[in-house]
This record gives sequence, C-alpha cells and structure tokens, in this order.
Amino acid sequence: MMTRRIGEVLKNSQPDESVTIQGWVRTKRELKGFAFIEVNDGSSMANLQVILNPDVPDYEESLKKLNTGASVEVSGILVPSPGKGQRIELEASSIKIYGESEPETYPLQKKRHSFEFLRTIGHLRSRTNTMGAVMRVRNACAKAIHQFFQERGFLWVHTPIITASDCEGAGELFTVTSLNLNDLPRTEKQEIDFAQDFFGRRAYLTVSGQLEAEVMAMAFQKVYTFGPTFRAENSNTSRHLAEFWMVEPEMAFCDLKGDRELAEAFLKYIFKSVLDNCPEDMEFFNQRIDNTVLATADNIINNEFACITYTEAVKLLEKSDRQFEYPVEWGVDLQSEHERYLAEELFKKPVIVTDYPASIKAFYMRLNDDGKTVAAMDVLVPKVGEIIGGSQREERLDVLEKRIKELGMLEKDLWWYLDLRRFGTVPHAGFGLGFERVVQFMTGMGNIRDVIPFPRTPLNAEF
Amino acid sequence: MMTRRIGEVLKNSQPDESVTIQGWVRTKRELKGFAFIEVNDGSSMANLQVILNPDVPDYEESLKKLNTGASVEVSGILVPSPGKGQRIELEASSIKIYGESEPETYPLQKKRHSFEFLRTIGHLRSRTNTMGAVMRVRNACAKAIHQFFQERGFLWVHTPIITASDCEGAGELFTVTSLNLNDLPRTEKQEIDFAQDFFGRRAYLTVSGQLEAEVMAMAFQKVYTFGPTFRAENSNTSRHLAEFWMVEPEMAFCDLKGDRELAEAFLKYIFKSVLDNCPEDMEFFNQRIDNTVLATADNIINNEFACITYTEAVKLLEKSDRQFEYPVEWGVDLQSEHERYLAEELFKKPVIVTDYPASIKAFYMRLNDDGKTVAAMDVLVPKVGEIIGGSQREERLDVLEKRIKELGMLEKDLWWYLDLRRFGTVPHAGFGLGFERVVQFMTGMGNIRDVIPFPRTPLNAEF
Repeated sequence: MMTRRIGEVLKNSQPDESVTIQGWVRTKRELKGFAFIEVNDGSSMANLQVILNPDVPDYEESLKKLNTGASVEVSGILVPSPGKGQRIELEASSIKIYGESEPETYPLQKKRHSFEFLRTIGHLRSRTNTMGAVMRVRNACAKAIHQFFQERGFLWVHTPIITASDCEGAGELFTVTSLNLNDLPRTEKQEIDFAQDFFGRRAYLTVSGQLEAEVMAMAFQKVYTFGPTFRAENSNTSRHLAEFWMVEPEMAFCDLKGDRELAEAFLKYIFKSVLDNCPEDMEFFNQRIDNTVLATADNIINNEFACITYTEAVKLLEKSDRQFEYPVEWGVDLQSEHERYLAEELFKKPVIVTDYPASIKAFYMRLNDDGKTVAAMDVLVPKVGEIIGGSQREERLDVLEKRIKELGMLEKDLWWYLDLRRFGTVPHAGFGLGFERVVQFMTGMGNIRDVIPFPRTPLNAEF
Repeated sequence: MMTRRIGEVLKNSQPDESVTIQGWVRTKRELKGFAFIEVNDGSSMANLQVILNPDVPDYEESLKKLNTGASVEVSGILVPSPGKGQRIELEASSIKIYGESEPETYPLQKKRHSFEFLRTIGHLRSRTNTMGAVMRVRNACAKAIHQFFQERGFLWVHTPIITASDCEGAGELFTVTSLNLNDLPRTEKQEIDFAQDFFGRRAYLTVSGQLEAEVMAMAFQKVYTFGPTFRAENSNTSRHLAEFWMVEPEMAFCDLKGDRELAEAFLKYIFKSVLDNCPEDMEFFNQRIDNTVLATADNIINNEFACITYTEAVKLLEKSDRQFEYPVEWGVDLQSEHERYLAEELFKKPVIVTDYPASIKAFYMRLNDDGKTVAAMDVLVPKVGEIIGGSQREERLDVLEKRIKELGMLEKDLWWYLDLRRFGTVPHAGFGLGFERVVQFMTGMGNIRDVIPFPRTPLNAEF
C-alpha cells in the first residue's frame, strides 16, 4: 500500500482516486449519522477533510478515539468537496488509529494558544498551524540558500564549531571543556591548567566561521558556511538567540562591489524561492501574523537595491526632519531607527550602506584610501533594518598587521590568518546573514524563539 | 570583464575563445623564450596550463614573481594543447599578479608532503591536489544528502547543539558554560551552582539530534538533521573526531523495513551522485589513495543489499572457518572484523544486519515480540564495515517506561520524549550516518582528520 502526503494529494489529486494518508487528527465534528475528521501530516497548512460514515468498520469505537492529536491512517476515495475552501475530501473506507490522545491531558486543544505557552511545550508546538508554517518556510529558505550557492559554484565548507581562537571578536564566548569542574587542575601559579583540558588549551564555541571560510576561499575561490554559531550574551530580547545558524559566503578575487551584487542577488533569490514554494504558508503569515510580509518580500524581489556610503547616509539623516532617539553624527554607528528610516521612509526599498568608519568596524575589514573608512557594507531592508553585514577583507599584510597591533590583538594568535596574506593574497570579500533573523523577517514572527525548533536563550535549554 | 572558473573552461571551452581566469600558480616551467604556468582555482583537480610568451607586458618581471602559490589573473585566447592529458591551454595576452609567494618560505612546494605535515598547515593544505579533491567530494556528498531528502519531502530540521539532556547516551560529553571557572559559584552544599550558569542548569554539546528529530517527525512525518555532533572521548585514532557532522533522518509511520529501504536508497544515491559529479576526483583517489574506492562505490550502487538478522549473522560467523580475534556468540556486539567478514567475504556486497540483542542497544529501540531483541539495524559495507546504524523506535509508552526504569534512567529528564508516546504515538524509525566516515570511505583517505577542513581531536583545536 502506497501512502501519500496530504499536501501532495490536495494539490494534485482528482475525485475518484483511491488514496491512503497518515497523519494526526486536528479536529473532529460529529454530525447526524456521520463525522468530519480533519487530518494533517505536516506537509501542508491545509488539512485533508475525512468523511467518516457509519459503514466504516468499527465506526462507533473509532469515533470515540478520534480526538485532537490522535494518529491515524485513512484509506478511501476522494470526492469533490461541497465545503468552502477545499477542492476535495476523502470518503473513508477504513480508518486505523495508531495512537490516541486524551482530550483531558493533551495540551493542544482547538483554542488559540499564546506563543509563550507554546514555547513551554516545544515538543508539541510544531503540530500547530503557525509553527508548522514556520518550519516549512524555514526548510524552504535553507534549501534555497544551498541551491543559490551550489548553482553558482560555491563549495559548502564546514568551519569548526569548537575553536581555540577568541579573536573572532563578535561578542561573549561559551567555554567548552571536558575538565572535571569540581576538581579543576591548577598550574604552579594556581591558574586553571587548560593544558590538561581536552584540546590542550582553552576552547570556545565559535561566533563566526568567517576567518576559516577565508582560508577555504583562498583554495576554492568561492565557498560558504551554513552552520551554528553562538553568543554567550545575556540578551533576553525577541531578536537574540544564544545558538543560531549563520550563512557566510566568502569569495576570492572579489571586491565590495562584487560582494554587494552577491548579497542583492542572494536576498532576491531566497525570498522568491520561499514565495514560490510556500505560497500557502506565506499567505497565512500575511493574514494572521503581519500583514506586511508579502509586501516586504515583493519589495526585496522587485526593486534594485539603493546604494549609498555611510557618509552620505549620515548627511541624509542629519538633513531629515525626523527626531531620532539617538542623534546622528559622523563616526557613530547607525541605530535601528536610522536604518529603518533610510530603507522604509527615504528609499522605500532595500538600501546598501557602504564604507563605514574604521573605528566602529572589525579588524579584518579593508581600509579605504581615505585612511578612515573601511570597505564594509550593511544591507538594510524596510520593516526589518539590517539583514546582512559584510565587507571586503584587508588583503594587504602590512596594513592588517598594523591594524592588529593598534587594536592590541596578538599576532601570534592569528599567524595562520596572516599567512593567507603572505602567500598568494588576493582581494576577497564576504558577508554574514543570521538565518533565524531572515526566517523571522520572512514570516513576520514577533519573537525569534518561535522560528527555531528548540531555542537556546538565557536560562532556557529545554528539550 | 567576465571571469570563468577553470573547471568549467576545461570542460566546455573551444579553441579561439577569449577567457579570463583567476587562481593560484601550482608550477612554473621556464623554457627557451617562453614559460608554462599551471594555474588552479579549486574548481577542478586539473590545472589550466598558461603559455606565457615574451610579448606579454612585463614578461620578465612577471616571470620572476610567478612562483608556486602566487595569485594571478590571466586573460588570453584558448588554443589546442599539443601536450598530453589536456585538450586546451591558454595563451596569455596579459597576466596580473595579485599576491606573491616566496619560494623560500611558502610551505607547499612541488614535492609530495605527508598528510601529517599538511595537518600542521591546515590553513594551506586545501591548496594541494588531494585535499582539494577531498573538499570537492565532501561538498558533492553534502549536496547529494540534501537533495535526496528534499526530493522525498523530508524537512531539514535544526536540532539543538547545546543541550541540557545527558541521556542521549552515546558517549562522553563536553560541558558548555559561561561561568567564570576561576570563581565558580557554589551552593550551600558546596556543589557547583549551575543554576547561575547561562542556561540555569548544566549544559552539554549534543551527541545526537535523534530525540529532537523524533519530536519533529511527529509533526512533519519525515525530517532529517544534518549538523555537528560531539564526543569528548579521548580516542586518538584514524576514525574518531571530537567534532563531526551527522545525518539523521526520522520517519513517522515507518517500521524497520521502511528504514532499511530508505538507508539502501540513500547510500546508493549519494555514492552515485558523487561519482557523477566528481569523476575526476574519484579517479584520483582510486589511482593514488586506495585502488578499491571505485569498486566499493560500484558495489554499493549496483547490488541489492543483503539482509540478515543478528541471530543469523552470529550463526554464519560461528560456522565460518575464519579465526576471529574476538570470538562470537549470541549476545555480544559484532566487531569490525565480523562486520567486514560478512560484507566482504561472505556476501561480497552491502549487508543489513537487523534485530540485535536489546542488551547491547540503546533504550529507545523497539522491543521485538521475542522480548530479547530490538528492531535495530546496522548497514555493513565491504572494505568499510558499519556505515549506518538505525532502528525502529519504541512507540509504546508502557514498554518504553519499563526500559527506562530498567536502565536506571530518569523519567523526569525524558518527560517530553515520553509525551510523544502519550499523544498520537506512531511507529517510527530512523538512522544515523557519520558524515566524515562516509567521506572517508568514499575517498579511501586513511585518516578521518583529512576529510574535514579543521579537525578537532584530543589536544588539537588549531585554526
């Protein structure tokens, strides 16, 4: 017996076809002499409506067990549906119940649950409409990311999760250890003796794969990472996770212009791909969660991105009538309010801001000829703010060494990174995109904890 | 100016085309009045041979700088190659050198380097033939894995890397902490107060995403993980990594038979896909690294896998004339020598062994009706041994609870996992595949440290 997925049946099937489907009961409606059962198998937002007539074997007994959450297999014939919103429904000839679900204890009843409550049942929440849609969009977006890069000859490279380097410089680090914390080994100076730890030195969870991606780009020209990264920051906000997935392309023989072009093509591609592959889910988000998500996607896909320098951006912001909470002047970092003003109100489309002051950007960004700005870029999107940050990297050994010294960083920790500039150095560039941020923006979900299956945040590592 | 990748040029181009390529010099041969430069950009094993004639601007000066490792951009016209092993070569009209590479200090000279040495220069080793081929095969395999599952309607789910659960039960765990190790907070009982740690409890790096994948399969029917997992085992062998990527599909409404079928289709697909996409690299491995890799791939792709129970396997092993280092009897786990004997000598093709004694398998595996074996499977491959381990999961709440008690595990730690059996439980199954193991087997590389860009092993977390 061939079973089929409900999403596929709803899309492709015709009346009179015999089908068998498997899934979980969403609702049961008992009418006079028969019942409607809505079944969902996670392949689509829409349920398949099953008509259960009394001639189905064990009708009465089955009906008692067919509560929300029960798992079933239904065989029958498809018939045209007289009901609104569905083309076909399934007239059951037999139904098998695998697992029951007691209405008294099953936490997911018909009523609407708050996202806060659903987070406490992370093991069940994917069975709801919203979380189901989120996870399908998340998958479609991840798939589009791989497709985009693979079609363009980029290699997916797996940069290390555990790193001994603390100079990636993007925030606070988690320590990874196999030492017995109750009996930490000590050196003669009474410091913790990390030489006795698993890796023979202190180790951390990575905050970015960029530096290692640069290594790989110097051999394969075009590479990308797509893997988990970590921040031990005590940020209890709707936009921060301690564990999140990041996408970081890196290209040799590429300057900031090439980087910009890639970022624009990339964003257009993944938004379009998700719209094409999850139209029903995206429609749901637009109707139920945030009625701007389709317009935002459309705006990204169909507009040529604007491009201005940081210096121009500051002038535009200074000129504006708008009262900002944080005043703007050359040299300060742009705040979310500034970024959104530029993208939403001034340009009304995505804007790439380039050439930021060196003083507010990372050590590896390429110094411009003016000696005070670097070849950095941020991609700002209406309703969202910054979605991508990237830069051309400093490929000149002497300039990079000088910068590392100025910042008080240790060259000896970066010997291998500097070697890339010693041997066959090339202009190169890349960017980073927080995967959950993008899924959050695509779906309009208010809290980033609701776009990852099992969020890790301060005081929370459940499931 | 449109630049092209060397692999694409070598495959698709015709003489008389104008092209520009960018890459790194592999070798330089100076002849009377002209020079050959071999350039590689990581897109293929083969280099593009560049002919440099004295009429190229700055000929003499360029020639001095064109040492192994230097980065270049070459424009010119393709011409038929009189040389052996190449169809076309590039007659340069101009050459630009981006970065030099001093022959005195560049560690990668023409001579053959040992893999041990190359591990000490992990930031440069991907520029060698072998490591280049490994990373291309690795990418092709990763791509094939996603394609296989996406084509079949599986969702890629991201299970957590940081977990508070220590009951995944697959070995020793790394601790993840943001506590100040020099000043650990203590409870009144003088125990370490993990309540003050980032997650409010002790946290670890995951050893498997399976339990969480089961959660997701109970909502989406078919899911897979593809992410990093960790073992804090002090195993300094050629087949162990402390950090490695794992693939774990999980299917609801699926028994061991369905699991077997998926595993067989999956292995055939990824081996075939890599052969199709990296023929040159696979040929290289067969010639230079292990002359059985093509035959092994062929064996996997073209044979129907055998399937025997553990009990049958033990009988076959007991009957054999072969002297094993570890004697076999019912109840003991099969060793690598037994597995290889079954696959290589007895069946001469992949063998799936099923229904192992419960006592040697994990708590979540489904108890068979005999009360002493579980619905587990290992897929054994000639020359390789075990490549996949999987099982049908115990979906019956009472049986699972009994097993958890027997093993002295705590039900309260697994409340959410047990809930999956309380609410709409279904037969379900899945398996796990160590990604680096597969790449190692595909390529015949002797040491697993040479199939991941930056290996993490005891006392080693460099780069």
